[in-house]
Amino acid sequence: MSADAIYEAMSTLRAVRRVKPDPIDEAVLQRVLQAAAWAPSGGNVQPWRVMLVLDEHKRQALGDLYRPQWAKYSVGARKNLARLEGEALAKQERMLAAADHLGEHLGSAPAILVFCFNPNHMAITDANLPRPSVVGGGSVYPAVQNAMLACRAENLGCTLTTLLCFVEDDVKQLLEIPEDWYTCAVMPIGYSVGKGHGPISRRPVPKLAFRDTWGNGFTPG
Amino acid sequence: MSADAIYEAMSTLRAVRRVKPDPIDEAVLQRVLQAAAWAPSGGNVQPWRVMLVLDEHKRQALGDLYRPQWAKYSVGARKNLARLEGEALAKQERMLAAADHLGEHLGSAPAILVFCFNPNHMAITDANLPRPSVVGGGSVYPAVQNAMLACRAENLGCTLTTLLCFVEDDVKQLLEIPEDWYTCAVMPIGYSVGKGHGPISRRPVPKLAFRDTWGNGFTPG
Repeated sequence: MSADAIYEAMSTLRAVRRVKPDPIDEAVLQRVLQAAAWAPSGGNVQPWRVMLVLDEHKRQALGDLYRPQWAKYSVGARKNLARLEGEALAKQERMLAAADHLGEHLGSAPAILVFCFNPNHMAITDANLPRPSVVGGGSVYPAVQNAMLACRAENLGCTLTTLLCFVEDDVKQLLEIPEDWYTCAVMPIGYSVGKGHGPISRRPVPKLAFRDTWGNGFTPG
Repeated sequence: MSADAIYEAMSTLRAVRRVKPDPIDEAVLQRVLQAAAWAPSGGNVQPWRVMLVLDEHKRQALGDLYRPQWAKYSVGARKNLARLEGEALAKQERMLAAADHLGEHLGSAPAILVFCFNPNHMAITDANLPRPSVVGGGSVYPAVQNAMLACRAENLGCTLTTLLCFVEDDVKQLLEIPEDWYTCAVMPIGYSVGKGHGPISRRPVPKLAFRDTWGNGFTPG
């Protein structure tokens, strides 16, 4: 197996927010969904499902739900611009312009994935801790990440949003999601209008990974 | 980019619970950590850190914390055996035997990753919904999955456990994790004693992915 191909996909998986309406071959979609299906989950229970929304009416309805959520959320994002200058400011402005485009056009992506989960099928080991619980996500987001890496490998643009959780009941009604299943990620996908996936900006390893003691940034010996 | 290499890694990433104590080259560890660092997160904030535990005393201390947690948890897993028979029973018994081995020997893995997160740096869009929250996990578990895929690509065995959340305060004290950071995944890694990564057992795509309406299993047209 070539580790290089895997690292190339990971290191160029950036958010693609402007995609063409051109349809995606269903064999390609099958490979993306198969990648998600391969992901590990707690006890191998796979307590997640994914809706592949292709129907135009339902995609536009998701877009209509997303538009006001992004409009509301972006107010805070714009306020943060005041703290930036130079290239950092320009970069953030480009990101916001693309995110505004997505805010208006999410429903025009040719396919939208809506990841769902059932907490009754999860052993949520941090459920009773006095801080926000995240462990349930450990049995869904590995599948989401596999799907994103598969999109990258197939040259399909994609990005992830969790803003539709604010209107989860409406999303559930639209897609006929059962009462005991909930939504945790929405991923519009399509072929990129621009350059698509490419260089990403991330913190260096020693700022994220510590050797044995907190703050002791890892560099290989 | 070869999509095949990526799909091969995903489709053979099974839990490896018996690893040799042999040390891992730090250049290999660096690549695994870099893979994690490339993962996307909400707003690109990267609200996670990972402790790379190499120190023998600290690894054994993690093992000592894990042993009683697995012993307690495995009681329920063993009760479920009564429902199984034939190959399904044999398979589950093999899994439990490997998990019991890990329960005794987690601290003997040459490296243990402990993923941490800070909820103050996350926009948890499902925090106020009347169901368990998982969205915070969306900014950590993609990094965890990248690390697992990198282990697979490097022929390093790995598995994920969240049981140490039950003794989070002890883990935080051991590793000097600050008050406002918490733990969400522990991953012992090392070279496999047995065959290591290989075939996995997952539901087929049409059981997990639905086209437009819940329950309408996807098959490519």
